[in-house]
Amino acid sequence: MNPIVSGIIPPLLTPLTSAGDIDVDSLTRLIEQQINAGVDGLFVLGSSGEVAFLTDEEREQVIELVLKLVDGRVPVYAGVIDTQTKRVIAHIRRAEALGVQAVVATAPFYAITGPDEIAAHFRALRAATDLPIIAYDIPVCVHTKLAPELLVQLGAEGVLQGVKDSSGDDVSFRRLCALNKAAGSPLKVLTGHEAVVDGAYLAGADGCVPGLGNVDPAGYVRMWRAYQAGDFATMRAEQDRLAQLFEIVFQPIGKVGPAAGVGSFKTALELMGVFTTNLMSPPLAPIDDAPSRDAIADILRKVGVLA
Amino acid sequence: MNPIVSGIIPPLLTPLTSAGDIDVDSLTRLIEQQINAGVDGLFVLGSSGEVAFLTDEEREQVIELVLKLVDGRVPVYAGVIDTQTKRVIAHIRRAEALGVQAVVATAPFYAITGPDEIAAHFRALRAATDLPIIAYDIPVCVHTKLAPELLVQLGAEGVLQGVKDSSGDDVSFRRLCALNKAAGSPLKVLTGHEAVVDGAYLAGADGCVPGLGNVDPAGYVRMWRAYQAGDFATMRAEQDRLAQLFEIVFQPIGKVGPAAGVGSFKTALELMGVFTTNLMSPPLAPIDDAPSRDAIADILRKVGVLA
Amino acid sequence: MNPIVSGIIPPLLTPLTSAGDIDVDSLTRLIEQQINAGVDGLFVLGSSGEVAFLTDEEREQVIELVLKLVDGRVPVYAGVIDTQTKRVIAHIRRAEALGVQAVVATAPFYAITGPDEIAAHFRALRAATDLPIIAYDIPVCVHTKLAPELLVQLGAEGVLQGVKDSSGDDVSFRRLCALNKAAGSPLKVLTGHEAVVDGAYLAGADGCVPGLGNVDPAGYVRMWRAYQAGDFATMRAEQDRLAQLFEIVFQPIGKVGPAAGVGSFKTALELMGVFTTNLMSPPLAPIDDAPSRDAIADILRKVGVLA
Amino acid sequence: MNPIVSGIIPPLLTPLTSAGDIDVDSLTRLIEQQINAGVDGLFVLGSSGEVAFLTDEEREQVIELVLKLVDGRVPVYAGVIDTQTKRVIAHIRRAEALGVQAVVATAPFYAITGPDEIAAHFRALRAATDLPIIAYDIPVCVHTKLAPELLVQLGAEGVLQGVKDSSGDDVSFRRLCALNKAAGSPLKVLTGHEAVVDGAYLAGADGCVPGLGNVDPAGYVRMWRAYQAGDFATMRAEQDRLAQLFEIVFQPIGKVGPAAGVGSFKTALELMGVFTTNLMSPPLAPIDDAPSRDAIADILRKVGVLA
Repeated sequence: MNPIVSGIIPPLLTPLTSAGDIDVDSLTRLIEQQINAGVDGLFVLGSSGEVAFLTDEEREQVIELVLKLVDGRVPVYAGVIDTQTKRVIAHIRRAEALGVQAVVATAPFYAITGPDEIAAHFRALRAATDLPIIAYDIPVCVHTKLAPELLVQLGAEGVLQGVKDSSGDDVSFRRLCALNKAAGSPLKVLTGHEAVVDGAYLAGADGCVPGLGNVDPAGYVRMWRAYQAGDFATMRAEQDRLAQLFEIVFQPIGKVGPAAGVGSFKTALELMGVFTTNLMSPPLAPIDDAPSRDAIADILRKVGVLA
Repeated sequence: MNPIVSGIIPPLLTPLTSAGDIDVDSLTRLIEQQINAGVDGLFVLGSSGEVAFLTDEEREQVIELVLKLVDGRVPVYAGVIDTQTKRVIAHIRRAEALGVQAVVATAPFYAITGPDEIAAHFRALRAATDLPIIAYDIPVCVHTKLAPELLVQLGAEGVLQGVKDSSGDDVSFRRLCALNKAAGSPLKVLTGHEAVVDGAYLAGADGCVPGLGNVDPAGYVRMWRAYQAGDFATMRAEQDRLAQLFEIVFQPIGKVGPAAGVGSFKTALELMGVFTTNLMSPPLAPIDDAPSRDAIADILRKVGVLA
Repeated sequence: MNPIVSGIIPPLLTPLTSAGDIDVDSLTRLIEQQINAGVDGLFVLGSSGEVAFLTDEEREQVIELVLKLVDGRVPVYAGVIDTQTKRVIAHIRRAEALGVQAVVATAPFYAITGPDEIAAHFRALRAATDLPIIAYDIPVCVHTKLAPELLVQLGAEGVLQGVKDSSGDDVSFRRLCALNKAAGSPLKVLTGHEAVVDGAYLAGADGCVPGLGNVDPAGYVRMWRAYQAGDFATMRAEQDRLAQLFEIVFQPIGKVGPAAGVGSFKTALELMGVFTTNLMSPPLAPIDDAPSRDAIADILRKVGVLA
Repeated sequence: MNPIVSGIIPPLLTPLTSAGDIDVDSLTRLIEQQINAGVDGLFVLGSSGEVAFLTDEEREQVIELVLKLVDGRVPVYAGVIDTQTKRVIAHIRRAEALGVQAVVATAPFYAITGPDEIAAHFRALRAATDLPIIAYDIPVCVHTKLAPELLVQLGAEGVLQGVKDSSGDDVSFRRLCALNKAAGSPLKVLTGHEAVVDGAYLAGADGCVPGLGNVDPAGYVRMWRAYQAGDFATMRAEQDRLAQLFEIVFQPIGKVGPAAGVGSFKTALELMGVFTTNLMSPPLAPIDDAPSRDAIADILRKVGVLA
C-alpha cells in the first residue's frame, strides 16, 4: 500500500457548464494550474467538490476525468461520502475500479451511530479494499467528532492511513498529532482548514487539504515549503496573506454553507478566467449579485491573484 | 394526484436474513400483520426501514417486494432519502417506475443549506414528478428544522401534499396544524412520534407514522379510531399502553440511535415470531445480550403483545 | 411540608415603571387579575419574571411585594435561579426569610456539570431548607436536560417535591409522568408550555405554569377545569384558542428570546391596561414598533382578551 | 485608562481549605509562584477561579486577598461574571471599589439575547465604569459566540479594551486579530487556550490567559518570550511540552467540565505542594481516586514540574 503523501492536496472543485454538466475545459485548466503550482496530490469528491450534490454517475465521471487529466503526475484521492457502510463500500468499489490511489470516508451520518459503530464502519471499509483509507473528520456535515484516540487506534491497526481534519477543533487536532507520533505515526494527519494552517503545522500536521487552494495553490505550496525549511516567519506571512484571501467566503450576501464557501471559490475562479461559470449544483444558487462579486474581486486583487 | 391518506401509516422495518439479505418471509408476515390490523397505508424506506443503510439495489428490492406483497390493499409511500436534490430525484425516478403512491423526502443534508435552498429543493422535486410528495421533518438526522410557515407555503403551492413530523417539537407541530388549517388544509400532517400521539391528535394531526406500529399496529389503529370517534378517554388509555410498550427502546444496554430504537423493534418482532432475526445493517450490531432481550420481552408481556 | 398545589400557577411577569423600577401598581393589577381568574398558585422570579435580569435587591423586593399583595390567598413559589449551589442557597435563605411556600431551582449552569453533580446540587439544596423544592427543567437556558429517572429518584428520596418542565421534550415529559406515577407520585409534575398543555394533561401533568397565563389566566383555569371534569373536547377547544393567542410571541420584528416572548406578554398587558409600560430589563429593548404592536393587538382582539 | 497588558495573565485558581473556605496560605504560595515566574498580570474570578460557584461575599474576599497579596507588582483583572447587565454592573461596582485594574465580562447568559442586546449590554457596562473592560468569549459556558466584527466595533468605540477568547474557534480568532489590526488595534486580544497558544501567537494574539499557567507559569512565560524574540522553534517546543502537560485534564475518571479541568489543575498543585487540598466548590467532588491522581502525577513528572 502506497503511503498517503505529505504536503498540499487541494480538494478539487467541480466546475459546471451553463447546462449544469461537468465542465471538462474548466476542470482541465484547474488541474493544470494545480500541478503547475506544485501540489503534492489532489482530492476529488470532497465537500468542496460538491460530492453530496452529485449522482453516482457524475461521481464516476469526475473521478475518471480527473485521473485522465492528471495522468499520474500526482496521486489522486477520492471521496466516497455516503450515509452508511454498504453505500460507502459501493462507492469504494467504483473508485477502485477507476484507479484512484486512496479513498476518503466519513463516519456514518443521517442515522446516529456511536463510537463502537464508527469503528466497525471503518473496519468494514478496510475489509472491503486494499486502498489506503483517509478518515474525514467534518462534524459540520457528519455531526459526529472523531476522537483522536479512536483514529490513532485505527491507524495502529492498519485500518486507516490518514486523517483529513476539518473539525475546527484545534486542541483535538494537536492531540491527534501527538498521539499519532507517540504511536509511531501510522497516520498522515492533514488539516482541512485554510486560515490557520501555520498553527496546524506547528501542531504537527503532515500537510493540508485547503479548499481555498483551488484559488491559490501556489500560496499553499509556498507556505508548506517554508514550514519544511523551518522558515516560520515566511510561513506565517504567507498564511496571513491567505487568511486575507479567505475573506472571500464571508462576502456573499444572504448565503450560508457551501453556497457561500464553495460558491465564493467558484466565483473567484470564474473572475480569474479559470472557470467558465460559477454555477453550483441544485438546489444551490450561484453568487450573481454585483456587490458580492465586487467584494470578492477586490479581495482577489488585494492579495495579488487577480490583475 | 391521489391525496395522502389519513390515519395509521407505519414505517415498515426491513427484516434481514442471517446472511444479511432482505428477508422476504419475515417481511411477508410483517405486512400481513399490518394489513390485518387495519393500517391505512405503509411507508417503506423510512428511518425505521434503515433507508440510510441500504444500497440503491436493496432499496429497489424493498419497494418492489412491498408493492407485490401489499398488492394494492393499502397505498405504499416510499422514502427517497439522500443528501441533495439530484440524488433524491434519482430515487424518485426509481420509486415512480416501481409504482409507489407517494414519495417521502427530507431537506438536503450533509452539506448545509438555508431556507431558500430548502424551498428550491422541494420545488425541484415537484418539477421532477407527478407523485404526491411528503416532506419528512427529522432534525435528529437532517440537522435542519422545517419551519411550519415554509411547509404550509409549499403546500399551498402544490409542491407538497403532506408532512411527516419527527421533529420532537410539539409547539411547532401545533403551529403547523393551525397554519395548515388556516390555509385550507393543503397538507396531510402526520406525526412520527410514538408516545405522544394523543397530544398530536388534539393538536390537529391527520394521522401517525409510528415506528412502534411495526410491533403493535392494532394499538395505533384503536387509538386513531377512538380519536375519530371523539372518545378521548379511550384514545388516551391506549396511548398510555403504547407509551409503556415504547419503553422497549430504552432497554438496550450500550446502544444509541437506531441500534437501540429500530433494534428494539426488530428484537420484539423476533421474540413475537414475526421476524427470523433481529439483525441490523452494518455497522450496527444487533441486540444480543440477555439482559436487554429479557427487559424487552418483559415489557412485551406486560402490555399484552407477547404471551 | 405542604405539598405543591395542582392546577394553574402562572409565572408572574415583573412590570417596570418608565424609570425602570418595579412597578407596584401594575403588579397589583396583575395579581388581582390572576387571583380573580382562579389560579391555584403564583410563581415569582421565573424566566418570565426576568429573574436573570434582576439584582438580588430587586429579587427580594419582588418576593416581598408579591407576598404582601397575595396575602395568603394562594401559595407563592419563588425562583432561586443562579449559577451554582452556594449562590442558589443564598437565594433560598432570602426567599425563606421572606416567607414563600416553595422554591424553584434549576440545575447548575454556566460551568458544565454532569448527572452526579446535578444530583449533589439538589441534595445540597434539600439539606439547606425545609421548603418544598421544585426542579426547573429549562434546557434552553440551562443547557442541560434533567433526566426523568433522576428527577423521580430525587422525588422518591424527598429531595424534590415538584418539577416544572419547560424542556420542550414531550416524549421525556410523558416518561416523567409515568415514572413518577409508578413511584407513588412523589412529584407534582407541571408543564411550562403554553400551546400544548392539553397534550401534557393527557400525558399526566398535574398542572401548568404558563407564561401566557399572565395575559389570559381565565383561559388556563377553564382548560384545567375542563380536564379535571373529563371534558376533553372543551379542554382542547380552549387550548386551540390559547394557541392562537400564543402567536403574539412570534410577532415582534427582529427580536429573539425573552425580548420577543416576555416582551409580547408585557406589550399585551400594556395594551390591555394592566401594565403602565412594556419595558424590559437591560439590555432588552421593549417592543416599540407599530407593526409588531398592531399584530399583537389584532391577535388579542381575535381571541377576545382585548375589546 | 491604563491599557491591558500583553503577555501572560493566568486565570488564578481559588484554593479551598478542607473546611471549604478560601485558603489564604495556598493562595499566597500560588501568587508568589506566579510572580516569580514572570507573569505580566493576573486574572481573578475567571472560569478557572470557579467564579460561578462563589457567593458575592466570597468573590469580594478573593479580590481583596489577591490585591493585597499582589501588592501592585502586576495588574489584577477581575471577572464580573453574571447572567445579565444589572447583575454584572453590581459586580463591577464591588471590583472597582476594591481597586482592580480591569474587569472581564461575558455576554448575557441564561436568558437568550441577540447581537443588538449583546452590544447594548457591553455599552451599558462601559457607561457604568471607567475601568478597562475585557470581553470574555466562552461559548461553552455562555452559549453565544461573540462575532469578531462586533468585538472590533466595540473596541473602536472605546467600549471594550480587550478580549479573552476561549471560544475554541481558531478561524474566528485569526479573523478577530486581523480585523483588530486593521482597525488600529483598539483591543488587546488574548487567547484562553492552553495547548494551541503557538498558533494563536502566529495568528496575532497579544498574550495568553492559560488556566494551565497555574501549574506551570514559567513555561508560558518562556513561550511568550520566545515568540517575542522571533524564536518560533523554541516557542513551538515549549508549546509541545505544555500540550503534554495539558493531558492532565483528560485523566480524571468519570468527570466532566471544571470537575475534570480545574480539578486536575488543583490536584497538580496539591501534588506539587502549593495547595493544601484539591477541593472544589459544591456540587463538584474533588479528584480522589488513586488511578486519576497517579496519572496526573506521572504527567507532571514527565514534563518536569514534579520531582
